[in-house]
Amino acid sequence: MAGEFELIARHFTRPSRRPWLGVGDDCALVTVDAGMQLAISSDMLVEGRHFLSTVEPERLGHKALAVNLSDLAACGAEPLACTLALALPRADDEFLAGFARGLYALAERAGIDLVGGDTTAGPLNICITVFGQVPPGQALLRSGARPGDELWVSGTLGDARLALEVFRGRVVLAGGDFETVRRAMELPQPRVALGLALRGVASSAIDLSDGLLGDLGHVLARSAVGARVDVDALPRSAVLAAQAPALQRECALAGGDDYELLFSAAPSRCDDVLAAARSAGVAVTRCGAFTTERGLRVVDAGGHELPLTWHGFDHFA
Amino acid sequence: MAGEFELIARHFTRPSRRPWLGVGDDCALVTVDAGMQLAISSDMLVEGRHFLSTVEPERLGHKALAVNLSDLAACGAEPLACTLALALPRADDEFLAGFARGLYALAERAGIDLVGGDTTAGPLNICITVFGQVPPGQALLRSGARPGDELWVSGTLGDARLALEVFRGRVVLAGGDFETVRRAMELPQPRVALGLALRGVASSAIDLSDGLLGDLGHVLARSAVGARVDVDALPRSAVLAAQAPALQRECALAGGDDYELLFSAAPSRCDDVLAAARSAGVAVTRCGAFTTERGLRVVDAGGHELPLTWHGFDHFA
Repeated sequence: MAGEFELIARHFTRPSRRPWLGVGDDCALVTVDAGMQLAISSDMLVEGRHFLSTVEPERLGHKALAVNLSDLAACGAEPLACTLALALPRADDEFLAGFARGLYALAERAGIDLVGGDTTAGPLNICITVFGQVPPGQALLRSGARPGDELWVSGTLGDARLALEVFRGRVVLAGGDFETVRRAMELPQPRVALGLALRGVASSAIDLSDGLLGDLGHVLARSAVGARVDVDALPRSAVLAAQAPALQRECALAGGDDYELLFSAAPSRCDDVLAAARSAGVAVTRCGAFTTERGLRVVDAGGHELPLTWHGFDHFA
Repeated sequence: MAGEFELIARHFTRPSRRPWLGVGDDCALVTVDAGMQLAISSDMLVEGRHFLSTVEPERLGHKALAVNLSDLAACGAEPLACTLALALPRADDEFLAGFARGLYALAERAGIDLVGGDTTAGPLNICITVFGQVPPGQALLRSGARPGDELWVSGTLGDARLALEVFRGRVVLAGGDFETVRRAMELPQPRVALGLALRGVASSAIDLSDGLLGDLGHVLARSAVGARVDVDALPRSAVLAAQAPALQRECALAGGDDYELLFSAAPSRCDDVLAAARSAGVAVTRCGAFTTERGLRVVDAGGHELPLTWHGFDHFA
């Protein structure tokens, strides 16, 4: 791409907050604190699949980093740094300015540096890799859920999916309601503080990116347990709660793009979970339990089992 | 993508060589040796720009990792691990099998694990991030060249560019010669062992990805020095050396895709450079010097300066 180096210099060179070498050499050099393990996650975002062409560049910059920070949150890792690889159809100064603004604003709040990366000409593609640190043995894993543990989720579920249904023309919302759910889709808030506060409290965790049923399925497979989901207890925004019951359940169970944490904790740790949530400033809701019996059951407030499995929702993912 | 998780499991789950958590959780957990700095590099490969659609998937898997390992080599870092993010137009089992074979074969030789990543539907795009470690203060940087240092390169230059010119129809080569230069383009060998051996010997290093003149320009800018390149001393393969002189120079000076190391060392370290090259099993060639006078001069064997600057070659990059 003509002007590649100038564009990088203009938009992606900022002073670093830690004494390490940032953008501009063959590698970035990052110092991990003594005795800490490095936690790494990488997510690739493609237009039309992870974001719509209508999204503002600033929100896209936010979201591209947010979905990666959400993976660190799910491990209880402290964010350190990230790299950005970007393929762009053309050297678009205005796009890059907005994208960088959104990305750096979130990086600033998360206390991390952008330490390197790559830009190239090509169909729009954003690949961010994040680095965090965690004391050995303290990372929250998908494999730690035990029968009897309670199932928790942070925030509210399903708003991003509801926004998508508006874009698809299946649902109509008033302007203010649409803006609310659109923000949920375009400006997810990674639960980094909650993940840190849950170390030593939660027995397992995963971030909700593909929808609750699918992501919970990964935890069940890794932990070799089953689960019961109390569908009517799933936390929903006022906007989603005003929709038809079937749509509410579809969005909350299989919506995707929530970037909330789903985690397990022993019943005896309930107070510790609530204290962790308070310290992180995030609401958490108990909405099920893990079972010895394998499989995933979805049960309503009347105790009736819904005739669905997470496989039944796979085509929504 | 339908079957995403199955495809990942089939092609990208292998036992890890170090006691860390690999593919399958929200993050990979990697242990950096006590007291070592982490070196990170990320490269994104796009069809038509970084590789041709005709490339065998196995060679593409090799090259995608090789160009990243080359960045670690240029820093003198010991490779530890990598992540892979992959956008594919469709879930292509045969492509993934070949790609994984090429990637893992090189990963095996480099002694690293694939510890995580992402796959998605989208225009073909490969983003690999590599992690290495280096003792603090010992990384080879672009900023260390000093006036009086000699300029060295590893291997031979220009074959990948010559292969590209064959694909473009500008050059015709006999079958065996074409296969030789095509291998240079599609199967570059990252100079990891040389980079490690040059720690404490070379004063600066960079890997040659965009062509010697452009990459040397980065070293000059970072080191605040100038350089003289002895164009007729640049190492060329027998195939390239049989081409017209102007084409030889164009390929060697501005070819791109060489993935050799360009480095500087004080004249007093010449024997150490040669010993490092011997220990790494890689040829190195002295082909210029760094100067107090800024700018980049290209001089032939008769001492005549060629009327070109690296800016003059920018359109080839």
